[in-house]
Amino acid sequence: MDSETPRVPRPGLPDATVARLAIYLGALNALHAEGATTISSGELAEAAGVNPAQLRKDLSHLGSYGTRGVGYDVAYLRFQLDQHIGSPEHWPVIIVGVGNLGRALVNHSGFSSRGFRVTALFDADPRLVGTQVEGHSIHALEDLESVLDDPAATIGVIATPPAAAQEVADRLVGAGVGCLLSFAAVGLRLPPSVTVRRVDLGSELQILAYHRQMSLADGITALVSDPHD
Amino acid sequence: MDSETPRVPRPGLPDATVARLAIYLGALNALHAEGATTISSGELAEAAGVNPAQLRKDLSHLGSYGTRGVGYDVAYLRFQLDQHIGSPEHWPVIIVGVGNLGRALVNHSGFSSRGFRVTALFDADPRLVGTQVEGHSIHALEDLESVLDDPAATIGVIATPPAAAQEVADRLVGAGVGCLLSFAAVGLRLPPSVTVRRVDLGSELQILAYHRQMSLADGITALVSDPHD
Repeated sequence: MDSETPRVPRPGLPDATVARLAIYLGALNALHAEGATTISSGELAEAAGVNPAQLRKDLSHLGSYGTRGVGYDVAYLRFQLDQHIGSPEHWPVIIVGVGNLGRALVNHSGFSSRGFRVTALFDADPRLVGTQVEGHSIHALEDLESVLDDPAATIGVIATPPAAAQEVADRLVGAGVGCLLSFAAVGLRLPPSVTVRRVDLGSELQILAYHRQMSLADGITALVSDPHD
Repeated sequence: MDSETPRVPRPGLPDATVARLAIYLGALNALHAEGATTISSGELAEAAGVNPAQLRKDLSHLGSYGTRGVGYDVAYLRFQLDQHIGSPEHWPVIIVGVGNLGRALVNHSGFSSRGFRVTALFDADPRLVGTQVEGHSIHALEDLESVLDDPAATIGVIATPPAAAQEVADRLVGAGVGCLLSFAAVGLRLPPSVTVRRVDLGSELQILAYHRQMSLADGITALVSDPHD
């Protein structure tokens, strides 16, 4: 967060709402980059991949109703969303594990467009240490403490094989990192002070297969699901 | 699904429950592979990264209570979970976009351990077409129809850059693929008959940052969040 204008996001929003607001903010950032100044709820809903009624309901919670026939002001709506879910601006992101997944994350446009900065990469493989990916040096995990400027504000992304994930998590928490995003399909034992999210890609496929079987079994023809429903 | 023993999963489970049951099944599969025959709820909760009370509640919905002092029978619990959320066995998965993310997904242990099979890879880059990744040939997207055996049962994973995602989705749906997992941080316009899930990695970071700011602002020291809470 910007230290001159500290923004504390609004507490108590359910994850599903935060997820959708984050998606709206991502879509608005993309539209802003393309030069859009106003947008209708229908256009924003389409860009965000949600239904327009859900979008209008979510935005009305922010006290944002748009102007009939004109739509929403892109800059003001971005400001409002920022106020509600907080701006990740200046939040440093480090990625541990620079295999295919780690490399995909370094390049991920959704990180930079939301204001996150990848600041350092780490890998256990001595052949990778000292090389660069997209301008970022790969460090040895042993050098974690010396590389991190502000561990408490740093998001640590675990993109290692599952077998290494717990050790890496312990290492990160030991260095003061309080916020982890793990792609390892294993549970992590962590102190309760640490904020964690897991992205389990196998589970995503299984949820999808469940819905597909349901829709085939029931003859339901309309089912569009969102990861955060 | 196996055509000799068709299993229709139980309808009406909320996404969050399906997600957790899928995580339990993944953890049980890993434990089974390691030779475990029984497991306590505490051990399974730790392996799945959820709290034990949540696990016991979820499993009691399945009518599964375990045996005091012995725990759950691993094989029977796998069978029960399979009955409830359906088995993805034999569901073919194709991946479109063989960059770093696509390559990471080909190798993803969570897919094969859950019974999904990656059957084909596709890319728009003619320099990649005809080459192999982990024993899978990369095909041109033009050859989609001729490569797919059973499009309606196929899960199409979109791992392309965001700008290409809509065109790829249209192409997949046109070929009869009814089930998509998209990593593109853009909304997709699709017919309502198509089942879709989006994994938006930028949103995951933003939700994490929201929780972190909340926990720092409130002095809350305990906050462990799950992607599907």
